[in-house]
Amino acid sequence: MPVSETSPTPLLLRADRDGVATLTLNRPQARNALSLALLEALRHAFAGLAEDGSVRAVVLAASGPAFCAGHDLKEMTGYRAEADRGARRFEALFALCSGVMSAIPALPQPVIAAVEGVATAAGCQLVASCDLAVAGAQARFATPGVQIGLFCSTPMVALSRNLSRKAAMRMLLTAEMADAEEARRLGLVNEVVEAGGALASAQALATGIAARNPDTVRMGKRAFYEQLEMPLAEAYAHTGRVMTENMLARAAEEGIGAFLANRNR
Amino acid sequence: MPVSETSPTPLLLRADRDGVATLTLNRPQARNALSLALLEALRHAFAGLAEDGSVRAVVLAASGPAFCAGHDLKEMTGYRAEADRGARRFEALFALCSGVMSAIPALPQPVIAAVEGVATAAGCQLVASCDLAVAGAQARFATPGVQIGLFCSTPMVALSRNLSRKAAMRMLLTAEMADAEEARRLGLVNEVVEAGGALASAQALATGIAARNPDTVRMGKRAFYEQLEMPLAEAYAHTGRVMTENMLARAAEEGIGAFLANRNR
Amino acid sequence: MPVSETSPTPLLLRADRDGVATLTLNRPQARNALSLALLEALRHAFAGLAEDGSVRAVVLAASGPAFCAGHDLKEMTGYRAEADRGARRFEALFALCSGVMSAIPALPQPVIAAVEGVATAAGCQLVASCDLAVAGAQARFATPGVQIGLFCSTPMVALSRNLSRKAAMRMLLTAEMADAEEARRLGLVNEVVEAGGALASAQALATGIAARNPDTVRMGKRAFYEQLEMPLAEAYAHTGRVMTENMLARAAEEGIGAFLANRNR
Repeated sequence: MPVSETSPTPLLLRADRDGVATLTLNRPQARNALSLALLEALRHAFAGLAEDGSVRAVVLAASGPAFCAGHDLKEMTGYRAEADRGARRFEALFALCSGVMSAIPALPQPVIAAVEGVATAAGCQLVASCDLAVAGAQARFATPGVQIGLFCSTPMVALSRNLSRKAAMRMLLTAEMADAEEARRLGLVNEVVEAGGALASAQALATGIAARNPDTVRMGKRAFYEQLEMPLAEAYAHTGRVMTENMLARAAEEGIGAFLANRNR
Repeated sequence: MPVSETSPTPLLLRADRDGVATLTLNRPQARNALSLALLEALRHAFAGLAEDGSVRAVVLAASGPAFCAGHDLKEMTGYRAEADRGARRFEALFALCSGVMSAIPALPQPVIAAVEGVATAAGCQLVASCDLAVAGAQARFATPGVQIGLFCSTPMVALSRNLSRKAAMRMLLTAEMADAEEARRLGLVNEVVEAGGALASAQALATGIAARNPDTVRMGKRAFYEQLEMPLAEAYAHTGRVMTENMLARAAEEGIGAFLANRNR
Repeated sequence: MPVSETSPTPLLLRADRDGVATLTLNRPQARNALSLALLEALRHAFAGLAEDGSVRAVVLAASGPAFCAGHDLKEMTGYRAEADRGARRFEALFALCSGVMSAIPALPQPVIAAVEGVATAAGCQLVASCDLAVAGAQARFATPGVQIGLFCSTPMVALSRNLSRKAAMRMLLTAEMADAEEARRLGLVNEVVEAGGALASAQALATGIAARNPDTVRMGKRAFYEQLEMPLAEAYAHTGRVMTENMLARAAEEGIGAFLANRNR
């Protein structure tokens, strides 16, 4: 199902099944570089998912051999022809991109990256921004902007919230590729599966999450990112309120009731 | 030594030896679920320890095959009969529980969890809240609330301050059990020992800590959690004051004096 | 090239090559303990490097079998003879030391520790404060102040920003040595090389970084530490501005231009 009807080849595909929406970056010929149009398609897709009660988990995958090569440098270079040398365009592009990245933790549904091939720069940031990530054994990750004079400064926001400080710095300063196992060890992905198996594994994870009560999952995911940015005492005060609200919801009443009934049988 | 004299079977045991107090959760028939009474006993025990100069380190262990199954869902379900469907009771319970969890980093003495069997939900949070943790090889950890419609929102506060972001999210969203080795790899426990050996190992660690000057340990532990929540410059200003105060204390004068004398012999 | 001309034996050596400045702690007879004079030499050296456009990366190494034993306890003990028992001197010393440690992330150039032998207390903090670190296989790390009544409270600031919470607490409370492999697993160093090979490896890493555009590296390193202390939305707003500024700089224009030209050949 194409998200953008105006594009002859849809830049982003969406396929729903059993409460799981799979979004597929679909610019394989450009290594799924995040052009303005693809970023707009992602923004639009996430906005739609946020309102879509039929979807309980999201998988983010990609067409072709690369997961995502980051920004579309050719398109960006075109902006340099403007009177302000592209300043306004660049600013708008990075704001849009950061909005898309931030939309992932803000989405009610959990988002799971399914990574095969390379995920670089903003493509690596996309993986880091997801709630969970599965990588095929041949997947590789890098933030190589420093090589071309454009440090991966927005990607570092997501990267440094997933990896330890020196590990993030190493990727940013050296542009080295981390293979899938290294990415798992560093905390960038949860799991490494056989090459080509990331999509199926991510969908299996998503299907498991989709089987849970969606209000419970939504409440929990939101609380997770909220409390992360609070000092300890405030985090407990906040999540205590969330837990009370959660206990009073029908899902908890039924779920706990069924659990106790089952235990007593 | 029973903490709660009013309970026919004490819910929490305390045994002191060589400056180490071992607290043992003692509701094995309920998998040490944190009933209101057990939480009150923990609160009372921590308050007592905070004032007890004879105790220099604390071990937190459990009776029976499970470490701790989290909240007492049967007791909580009883609260639903109240006019407000339990709202006030739930709120008070979560506040008490968060108070107990926060009392661990706030305690002057280091607290070491000794985990055998499963530690789930608030039981997993209890492990995450301790300063250090040792697990027997058969110990397992989960935050499975999502399965019964009650997301582990207060447990996530402690969990997400120990584990990397995606690792914490995976435990919260999937309810999967992490075995002891995985828990060590993720940062939830410091060490895995042979099954059945966690208590002895935790007590050995505690005895080592108890041999240090207690004022030094108290000053250091307090500074650790204080500076964690500060930006870098403020953290250095604060700990610089702590170090100066520490240098002027008798323990440092004697300790450094003995160290230098020994070196020069 | 001696940094301090007034000292008969320079406490800190500096040697520059190919845009890489190697600073070498040079009090091997005192296990490179951070005396007031050595801290002043480091402060002076970092201040000079901050202004030195010819240097694009820094390696921090040490003479002799130990990397750095932390503060100079003998010198500090001498301060106790003052009327205020040394209070003012200790305060000034810790402020100077924290200033030196904070100067590392604040330096425009990346700083890479090359560690052989033991790095303890403020010596371990020095490693934690560097952007990257390479350790020889025999390197060892500890924060053993608790043993002599002086908790490693300023070192914990850097340590706890590199390691997971319980791992940092274990080092601080037990004074145990972590070997090089353990230090890598915990996030204190990036890489372990054969014993004696840390300097060459760190210099190779530094030379690679020095080959990048220095303005890009400076902009990226500064943004990294700035955004680390911001909530997510603020971090994205800030780095979005940095990226725009970076795009408008000549280095990015040339680097991206060359990249696209090369891709199209």
